[in-house]
Amino acid sequence: MAEIEIGSGKSARRGFGLDEISIVPSRRTRDPEDVNISWRLDAFDFDLPIIAAPADTVVSPSTAIAIDQLGALATLNLEGLWTRYEDPMPLLKEIAALKGIGATKRIQEIYAEPIKPELITARIEQIAASGAITCGSVTPQHAARYAPTFMAAGLNVLVIMGTVVSAEHVAKGGEPLNLKSFIRELDIPVVVGGCASFQAALHLMRTGAVGVLVGVGEGVSSATRSVLGIGAPQATALADAAGARSQHLEETGVYVQVIGQGGTRRGGDIAKAIACGADAIMMGAPLARAIEAPGQGVHFGPDASNQSLPRGLPVVVEQHASLEEILTGPAHFADGSTDLSGALRAAMALCGYASIREFHKAEIVLGSGRSS
Amino acid sequence: MAEIEIGSGKSARRGFGLDEISIVPSRRTRDPEDVNISWRLDAFDFDLPIIAAPADTVVSPSTAIAIDQLGALATLNLEGLWTRYEDPMPLLKEIAALKGIGATKRIQEIYAEPIKPELITARIEQIAASGAITCGSVTPQHAARYAPTFMAAGLNVLVIMGTVVSAEHVAKGGEPLNLKSFIRELDIPVVVGGCASFQAALHLMRTGAVGVLVGVGEGVSSATRSVLGIGAPQATALADAAGARSQHLEETGVYVQVIGQGGTRRGGDIAKAIACGADAIMMGAPLARAIEAPGQGVHFGPDASNQSLPRGLPVVVEQHASLEEILTGPAHFADGSTDLSGALRAAMALCGYASIREFHKAEIVLGSGRSS
Amino acid sequence: MAEIEIGSGKSARRGFGLDEISIVPSRRTRDPEDVNISWRLDAFDFDLPIIAAPADTVVSPSTAIAIDQLGALATLNLEGLWTRYEDPMPLLKEIAALKGIGATKRIQEIYAEPIKPELITARIEQIAASGAITCGSVTPQHAARYAPTFMAAGLNVLVIMGTVVSAEHVAKGGEPLNLKSFIRELDIPVVVGGCASFQAALHLMRTGAVGVLVGVGEGVSSATRSVLGIGAPQATALADAAGARSQHLEETGVYVQVIGQGGTRRGGDIAKAIACGADAIMMGAPLARAIEAPGQGVHFGPDASNQSLPRGLPVVVEQHASLEEILTGPAHFADGSTDLSGALRAAMALCGYASIREFHKAEIVLGSGRSS
Amino acid sequence: MAEIEIGSGKSARRGFGLDEISIVPSRRTRDPEDVNISWRLDAFDFDLPIIAAPADTVVSPSTAIAIDQLGALATLNLEGLWTRYEDPMPLLKEIAALKGIGATKRIQEIYAEPIKPELITARIEQIAASGAITCGSVTPQHAARYAPTFMAAGLNVLVIMGTVVSAEHVAKGGEPLNLKSFIRELDIPVVVGGCASFQAALHLMRTGAVGVLVGVGEGVSSATRSVLGIGAPQATALADAAGARSQHLEETGVYVQVIGQGGTRRGGDIAKAIACGADAIMMGAPLARAIEAPGQGVHFGPDASNQSLPRGLPVVVEQHASLEEILTGPAHFADGSTDLSGALRAAMALCGYASIREFHKAEIVLGSGRSS
Repeated sequence: MAEIEIGSGKSARRGFGLDEISIVPSRRTRDPEDVNISWRLDAFDFDLPIIAAPADTVVSPSTAIAIDQLGALATLNLEGLWTRYEDPMPLLKEIAALKGIGATKRIQEIYAEPIKPELITARIEQIAASGAITCGSVTPQHAARYAPTFMAAGLNVLVIMGTVVSAEHVAKGGEPLNLKSFIRELDIPVVVGGCASFQAALHLMRTGAVGVLVGVGEGVSSATRSVLGIGAPQATALADAAGARSQHLEETGVYVQVIGQGGTRRGGDIAKAIACGADAIMMGAPLARAIEAPGQGVHFGPDASNQSLPRGLPVVVEQHASLEEILTGPAHFADGSTDLSGALRAAMALCGYASIREFHKAEIVLGSGRSS
Repeated sequence: MAEIEIGSGKSARRGFGLDEISIVPSRRTRDPEDVNISWRLDAFDFDLPIIAAPADTVVSPSTAIAIDQLGALATLNLEGLWTRYEDPMPLLKEIAALKGIGATKRIQEIYAEPIKPELITARIEQIAASGAITCGSVTPQHAARYAPTFMAAGLNVLVIMGTVVSAEHVAKGGEPLNLKSFIRELDIPVVVGGCASFQAALHLMRTGAVGVLVGVGEGVSSATRSVLGIGAPQATALADAAGARSQHLEETGVYVQVIGQGGTRRGGDIAKAIACGADAIMMGAPLARAIEAPGQGVHFGPDASNQSLPRGLPVVVEQHASLEEILTGPAHFADGSTDLSGALRAAMALCGYASIREFHKAEIVLGSGRSS
Repeated sequence: MAEIEIGSGKSARRGFGLDEISIVPSRRTRDPEDVNISWRLDAFDFDLPIIAAPADTVVSPSTAIAIDQLGALATLNLEGLWTRYEDPMPLLKEIAALKGIGATKRIQEIYAEPIKPELITARIEQIAASGAITCGSVTPQHAARYAPTFMAAGLNVLVIMGTVVSAEHVAKGGEPLNLKSFIRELDIPVVVGGCASFQAALHLMRTGAVGVLVGVGEGVSSATRSVLGIGAPQATALADAAGARSQHLEETGVYVQVIGQGGTRRGGDIAKAIACGADAIMMGAPLARAIEAPGQGVHFGPDASNQSLPRGLPVVVEQHASLEEILTGPAHFADGSTDLSGALRAAMALCGYASIREFHKAEIVLGSGRSS
Repeated sequence: MAEIEIGSGKSARRGFGLDEISIVPSRRTRDPEDVNISWRLDAFDFDLPIIAAPADTVVSPSTAIAIDQLGALATLNLEGLWTRYEDPMPLLKEIAALKGIGATKRIQEIYAEPIKPELITARIEQIAASGAITCGSVTPQHAARYAPTFMAAGLNVLVIMGTVVSAEHVAKGGEPLNLKSFIRELDIPVVVGGCASFQAALHLMRTGAVGVLVGVGEGVSSATRSVLGIGAPQATALADAAGARSQHLEETGVYVQVIGQGGTRRGGDIAKAIACGADAIMMGAPLARAIEAPGQGVHFGPDASNQSLPRGLPVVVEQHASLEEILTGPAHFADGSTDLSGALRAAMALCGYASIREFHKAEIVLGSGRSS
């Protein structure tokens, strides 16, 4: 990878975002009916390569069940409102009504309420009762603390998630989470991230995780770039993680799923992310637009409620279509916001590819094309 | 062509859009009167290298006749409103009055009406009665079904058109259209596309088509990029197709016309597309601005009415000038929206070129110039 | 100069606009008082390297005199309103009141009035009577026709100007202007352009012109790019013309002035154009903002009145300062719109350069810097 | 460093701005508590690598004291309003109420009032009385004139500051300031700038300055680029200055602080500037948003009051948080405008770096990532 000198003695790679690329049709086309977009995470099979992000505005126990029934996976934030409050819906409604900077202060207050382990148990059991696969997220800081609770409740899939999660956390005081031993000792599959480079992804893969979340600062509601200056263009981050996946597969025989997170707002973004190497996509904002979404017209991620350094203003979203229309269609909106899986299927068909792993080889062009 | 590594093991070409280039004057100028912009499609000669796109908002039987009389070619969508309804004008008026997302649902309803073969016949005959060259478009899916009808009606030129059309369509079930045998068996010249790469264009040329439509996701009303993630910057796509045309000419002695579609809104865009290798330009939105346009103030392409995955919101357009002023002038607007052929002639004259094939050699510069 | 392949068999240079560059301070600074910004055109010396463009909204006989007294040169359009009407001020006022597309039709009507040779004579004599240097512009098409008139009236400097002017105009019919013999036979110095490449500039220099206008499609009020697709990023065009100037100087011993036109709206643009190789700058829009400007709140160039293919809508400008404040200050506006010569002097001083020819060597950096 | 030919015989470097880069997380993370962001300027230690810029809208004697108590350094403009008027607050309030171009004329009038040496003395003593470190700025033009006054008043740190300051000022008449002898003869540490290249920074370091201000034309309120055409993308300027710091350290054993100025509006910008090589950041606009800021809702820099060539319109700012919240948090705004030091600490922790000098080695990626 070419390095560009940005100044005396300081070089940088040029990275590319999903908005800077397009997929080039090949000389072959295919019938959409012949395209397979399913994927597998450990022992679980999914019809759609889409994971609902652990945002309180997207995943409630009831939307988790609905999303499962549509063939996708939903991640409940085990450190979010649903495990702090018996009924967070009125609070989300209150946040949806707030505008601008005042919202952050109120969000901080609402999230100051302690997490209740009994609610963690109750939420997991509520989702499991429907027959849905249960998936919950924790931060590296609190993963060990809540492990006994979510394991006892029978969680199926764990997501360990932070703005940046590394396989090597250094701390002078306190007991840092040893990801490798923690993951290997758990009896359930673990997905971990975010990360945004070949090395970081490779080291996370070596922890025994079945999936790695790729993407830093790409989310619609994220302020990681402006507040922290940290980030990585997503097309490059995904291709790098896919490279790490190949190396890890060669070294161990294990195929770790690369899950793109952030920056995928429309069907075309999903197709581009997969063409860059993703096996599945975790998304929040596009699902917060569902009529069923608990956000009730607002969307924000876990960072927005940070007590000392909140990151990301709540984004107003129009609740315009059902989860079903958004995920599996048919679409009645012409902007790529609905029938996300149909759009992916159509894109693959028009480019002549039959499966997600084949689509990883799709030809990409740099250049935004027409400007308006 | 240089490949740029966008991440570990994934490379991409850098493509360029028409907005990123300008034509550089040479050291010679010419009189506009001495410039020849005519072109030929099979046995048909045209004064203007402009084809009206098969959008129901642009080409009705009456505008088809008017466009023919001005020296250009008009393509009627044989699967559009004009072959579904006796009189679609009130429906187009209704669509023109709708705003935003509701429009798509209503468009889907209106296009759910079945196509009537007797209307295909009637429309073709209506245009032919004026003495105009008749040109109609079908999708690859329905080309075979309607072939007996449009052939019996005496269609002059057929356009087989989809978002992406390839010479090699793979389908497990059903009977795919074999473009090569279909085109060779038809008694009329066929134009086919879209495509956006050297190989795809070359393979379409080998089907026996007399013209290839080049451009994917470039149209003003297109949402192919956002919904599907597919696209290609048009300057590069045209130059690549022109390269395929040269190779095909060398191999077969046959010069297949390269027809740019999408992204050409003003006179300057037409000039740039031709300087990149196009022989003619298919355009919709600029003609939807004609006072005579059936869109009556709105423009949308065929994808906007897709029943399961609509792509492209109707675009509001101001009907500001006659078809004559738009195509052949004189212009009374100073923004390049009228006298498109005069603008092309003037551009060629100021750069010292006398014919379209000469103008393919015009010098190009990358860089947007002044920013505002 | 590196060529970039934009597609199969089609290459292009990457050009750079003035907005894409900045001047880098050197390790030396200087006192503004020690900076000399004067220049010379044939036998005429000017305090300021600024030429008022032949726009009817900028140069009237009275502003020509005022601009001369401030040390700059003003070009009266000998084919504009001032030679068609005894008093065009009411017409300009009428145009200033028109908005949008209707303006073009009215401008075309107003300019349909024939040019009156006796007014050419009167305008030149009126300016000369003040003691000012007289400078007038004609198009290549009409240069020969009006030559006896403006020569008899005692014009000092002639500008032959078109969107693109070449040294080799090809015409099947009619008698094209032979620039070389025309210029050599005239007894007064001639400036000619526009052009935008090394070869085109060099060939214009060889006609015997004392100055060459460099810039195509760069003006604020220009629509050359959108209507014709023709243009060239100005920093590159100026550097190329400066290279042609060096070669011509080597070949002939004659230093032909390179005059940048278009794209220089503020003081910083002038400095950057000179750092790229310009000896002087022709400008319209910034001077149309003078309280004395005949445009009375509107600005448009000669192309806007073209009878068949008008190019460029009238731009509304706020008349905010006197010609004196704009050209020589002191400035009471903080945006670079006034004291253009003071800004140039300050820029040269802060970079340590003492004359315009020295400033041609200033270091340039590509990159826009902060985005907002 | 690669040079790009922008035209015949004229080359330029490609520079990069802070907005064009992001910091890439490494494969290691760290606890924020273990991150040290302190720095040292000569004998003075500071908890925060932040210097308040000498803008009258930011630093008054009372905010200087408050900023010192929060661990940062504040620079009082010794040639600003606080040394011209006993009480400038009503005048700043008046400016805050002015809109648009009229503001500049009134600012010029207000700053026409002469500087009063006795006020220089009084301001320094007022700040010193609180126990705060006193830091004042002068221009190179007036440094010598006011030196006896500020030295007698016991100033701790001097900043010599102009749009561009060089180590080699050439002047035909008058007595130019010899920076080298002036700085070496002063008994207090001197910071000097701006500059924006390796050579210019190196030569300033050789004057004996303890810190060099890096950045030209980057400030939010700056119009240096538009008025003068001068500037340099800040990421490149900082990396170049850091290279000069290394060379100077090798040659002399002295580590001169590189202080980035301009273009750092949010926490992420500070992190990026330090990752490019800065030791500390001088900032104005973000601090002008403090409730305590003397600007009372407006911000402008020293250039805005220039009597002949003012540069930079006053920027309206919302006073939204206390100096404490802005500098050290906790933050109640989610956009990176508050808890600037906490954001820096978090960025360093997430990338696994423990000190500012370590963070100079952080990996950088070019590319803006997601577009919206």
